[in-house]
Amino acid sequence: MKDLTSIKPLGRNDLEGLVAAASRYREAIDDKQHLDQIMTGKTVSLLFFEPSTRTRLSFDLASQRLGAHVLTFDPARSSTIKGESLRDTVLTITAIGSDLLVVRHADEGVPDSVAAWTGVPVINAGDGANEHPTQALLDAVTISRHFGGFEGLRMAIVGDIVHSRVAGSLAHAMTTVGVDLTLVGPEEWTPENTGLKVSHELDEVVADLDVVYPLRVQTERGGEITDDYIRRFQIDRARSAALGEDTVIMHPGPMNRGVEIAEEVADSPRSLVMEQVRNGVPARMAVLAALGGGG
Amino acid sequence: MKDLTSIKPLGRNDLEGLVAAASRYREAIDDKQHLDQIMTGKTVSLLFFEPSTRTRLSFDLASQRLGAHVLTFDPARSSTIKGESLRDTVLTITAIGSDLLVVRHADEGVPDSVAAWTGVPVINAGDGANEHPTQALLDAVTISRHFGGFEGLRMAIVGDIVHSRVAGSLAHAMTTVGVDLTLVGPEEWTPENTGLKVSHELDEVVADLDVVYPLRVQTERGGEITDDYIRRFQIDRARSAALGEDTVIMHPGPMNRGVEIAEEVADSPRSLVMEQVRNGVPARMAVLAALGGGG
Amino acid sequence: MKDLTSIKPLGRNDLEGLVAAASRYREAIDDKQHLDQIMTGKTVSLLFFEPSTRTRLSFDLASQRLGAHVLTFDPARSSTIKGESLRDTVLTITAIGSDLLVVRHADEGVPDSVAAWTGVPVINAGDGANEHPTQALLDAVTISRHFGGFEGLRMAIVGDIVHSRVAGSLAHAMTTVGVDLTLVGPEEWTPENTGLKVSHELDEVVADLDVVYPLRVQTERGGEITDDYIRRFQIDRARSAALGEDTVIMHPGPMNRGVEIAEEVADSPRSLVMEQVRNGVPARMAVLAALGGGG
Repeated sequence: MKDLTSIKPLGRNDLEGLVAAASRYREAIDDKQHLDQIMTGKTVSLLFFEPSTRTRLSFDLASQRLGAHVLTFDPARSSTIKGESLRDTVLTITAIGSDLLVVRHADEGVPDSVAAWTGVPVINAGDGANEHPTQALLDAVTISRHFGGFEGLRMAIVGDIVHSRVAGSLAHAMTTVGVDLTLVGPEEWTPENTGLKVSHELDEVVADLDVVYPLRVQTERGGEITDDYIRRFQIDRARSAALGEDTVIMHPGPMNRGVEIAEEVADSPRSLVMEQVRNGVPARMAVLAALGGGG
Repeated sequence: MKDLTSIKPLGRNDLEGLVAAASRYREAIDDKQHLDQIMTGKTVSLLFFEPSTRTRLSFDLASQRLGAHVLTFDPARSSTIKGESLRDTVLTITAIGSDLLVVRHADEGVPDSVAAWTGVPVINAGDGANEHPTQALLDAVTISRHFGGFEGLRMAIVGDIVHSRVAGSLAHAMTTVGVDLTLVGPEEWTPENTGLKVSHELDEVVADLDVVYPLRVQTERGGEITDDYIRRFQIDRARSAALGEDTVIMHPGPMNRGVEIAEEVADSPRSLVMEQVRNGVPARMAVLAALGGGG
Repeated sequence: MKDLTSIKPLGRNDLEGLVAAASRYREAIDDKQHLDQIMTGKTVSLLFFEPSTRTRLSFDLASQRLGAHVLTFDPARSSTIKGESLRDTVLTITAIGSDLLVVRHADEGVPDSVAAWTGVPVINAGDGANEHPTQALLDAVTISRHFGGFEGLRMAIVGDIVHSRVAGSLAHAMTTVGVDLTLVGPEEWTPENTGLKVSHELDEVVADLDVVYPLRVQTERGGEITDDYIRRFQIDRARSAALGEDTVIMHPGPMNRGVEIAEEVADSPRSLVMEQVRNGVPARMAVLAALGGGG
C-alpha cells in the first residue's frame, strides 16, 4: 500500500489490520502512554482545498503525536491565486520536503491525480462525492471496539447517499468486513445497481439494526433539505424508540440537528458520535504509520 | 481551579501565586534557561472566533514552550459553515484529543458554556465586553515586577470602560491585590454601582497616579470615537507631563495612536506597553501550568 | 550579518559560504541524517503580508528542522484590522518572544524598516518589486550544485525584470559570484544603466547560454501579458531546441505555463525547477543558522 486514496483496494485482512493498529493507538492515548516518535524528521503536508474541522485537526494531531513536522497549505493564502496549476502546486509542496500528503478537494479523483504526480504517499481526506477512506476506517474502529468485532452486525446508512463520500467508502468497508448493510434513502439519493440492499422506507428496516448511520444532506453538492425528507428519514424520537435496546447511532459529523437527526437523539446514550471523533486521531495514526512510518 | 473563564473567583493568594509563577517563567526565558516540558504529550487547542494577534500567538508560543502540541481552529476554514452548532464544534475539538481549550468569542459567556460542555480546562481569551483574565494577569505581572509589588499603588483605567473586557477583568484583579483604583471616562462609558471610584474628569485625577491605563475605544462593540472624547480623555503630551515622575503608562494593545494615546506618549520612557507584551507568554505559561500541567 | 534584507551587502565569500552551508544541509536531508537542533528554544515568526506557498512553507519547515518554535502571523485574522500600525504589530510580535522575523510585504523597504524597529534578525522574504534574497540564494545553490560552481557560466534572466524582486536579488548575486549575465526583455521591462548587459531580442542570445531564467509576468505589480510578449519572449519549444545541449532552464515559480514558458518546456529534462524548490529549505536553513543559530 503506497497510498490510501480509496478504501476499495483493501481486503478484509488489510482493514482488520488497520483497525487493530488504530485500537492499539487509541488505548495508548487513553492510558497516556508515551508514543513512539516513528515519524521524527518526516514531514506531513495537509492540503485542504475544502473546509474541514475534524479531519484536518485530527491529521494534524496524529502527525504531531508520531513526531512528524506538519505543513499546512492554505489555498486562500497561496500562489494558486497567481495562476499556478494544481499539479505545480502539488509538486512544489512535495519538493519542499513532504514525506506524505493529505489531500481534500471538491473534485472527485484529485487524490489519485496527486498520487500519480508525486512519488510520496497520498491520503485522501475526502474528494467530492467519491470517497473518504479514513472516515470509514475510524467508523470501523468505533464499531469493532463497541461490539467486539463485526460478526453478524446489521447496519443502515440513511439519507443523502449519492452525494456522500463518507457513504462511498463506508459501504465498501462494511461489506468487506462482513457487516449486513442496507442503504436507506429517497429514490433520488439512493444508488442503483451497487449490489447492496436498498430501502426507501426507513420505518421498515429500523427495528432490525445494530447500527444506524444517518448522513448530513450535502447541500454543497446538490442535496436539498425538504420537510418531506425530514418526515421520512430523520432519526427522531419515535424512530430512536423503535430501535433495539443495544442499537447504536453513528454520524460522521458535522451534524445538522433537526434535519437528519433530532436534537435529543443526537445526545442520547445510543449515540457513538463522540466516540467516532475520539477514534479519528488513532485511526489516522495507523494510516500514517502504515504509509509513512517506516520509510 | 479547573478553568480560568473569569478572574473573579481568584483571591489575593491565587493571583499573587500566578504572578509569582509567571515572573519565574519570565526570568527563565530572559536567562535562556531550558524550560521543563511539563505539557509533553498534551494538546492545547486555540479556538479564536474573533481576530487576535498578541493573545493567540502568545498562547501558541506558551504552549509550545511547555512542550504541548497546539491545534489552531480557524472558524473561517471549518465545518461551522456547514451548519454545525458551536457546542458540537467544541465537543468535537475536545474529543479529537484536546487537553485544554483556549476560547475567544464575540459573545459574553461563551467560555463558561464551553467549560460546562467539556470536561477539560478552559481559558477565556476574551468574551465580548465581559472578561479577559489572562490580560489582567499579565498586567498584574508587569506592575508587580516594575514596582516590586502592589502596596500603595494608585491606578486609573481610562476610557471606554463599559465595552472593555480588559477593564472587566483588570478592575477586579487590581482591587483584589490592594491597588487603589479609579475608573475614568465619559458618563456613558463608565459603569455605575460597581463600588469602585469613578471620575469623569481625567485632569482631576491625573496628578495622583502611579499607573495610567488608557483603553482602546471598542468601535466593534458600540464605542464611537469623537473629537470631544479625544480632547477630554486622550493621554496627550500635556497630561503625560502632569504625571508624577515615576508614573507609568500601560495599554492592553492594539493601540490607536492619536485617539486614546498620543503618538509620542506611546513611545515615551513612561510606557510599559512592550513590557506588558513580554509578560504575555510567561503569564499564559503560568496559567497553562496551573490548569493543565500536572494532569 | 545581523539581517538579510538585501543580497547586496554580501560579497563573493559570503555568498559562497552560504551556498556551501546550504549544500551541506541539502545532503544531510537527502541522506536522512539527524539534523542538529541548533535553534531549540528559539522562535521564528513568519509575517507574510502577501500570499505565498513555497517561501512560507519552506521557512516554516526550515525552522522546524532546526528545532525552532514557529509562529505564523496571519494579517487577515489579526489586530491590524483594529487599526494597529505596522510598527506596533511588528514590535508586539517581537516582544511576544520572537528570536527572528521573516517578512514579506507588498511595499519595498518594509523588511528594512522592520529591521530598524526591532533588535532581532530580519529576513526579507520578498518586498514589492525590490528584493527576494533567499530566492537568489537557493538559485545560486541550484546552479552551483548542477555545474559544480559558477566559473565561466553564461546566464539570461528573461521577461518582466523591472517588476521582479527575484531579478533584483538574483542579478546581484550572479554577477557577484562571476556569472556572465544578460537581462533580456521588452524595452519597457528592462532596466537601464545598471551596468549589466541588456538585450531585447531573446533569439539573439539564446544559443550562447548555460542557464535561461524566465520570470513570471508580475500582473499584481503592473506587468501585462500580451500576445506580442509571448511571441517574443516565451521559452517555447523552438527556443528550447536552440539551447545548447547542457543548458538548463530555471524558474522561481509559480510558473504561468503558456505565458513565459511553454507547457512542454516546463517539464523537459532541461528544467531545474523542482531542484530549485528542493534547495529552498536547505538554503533557508543556512540563512537561519547564520543569523539566528548561535545567538
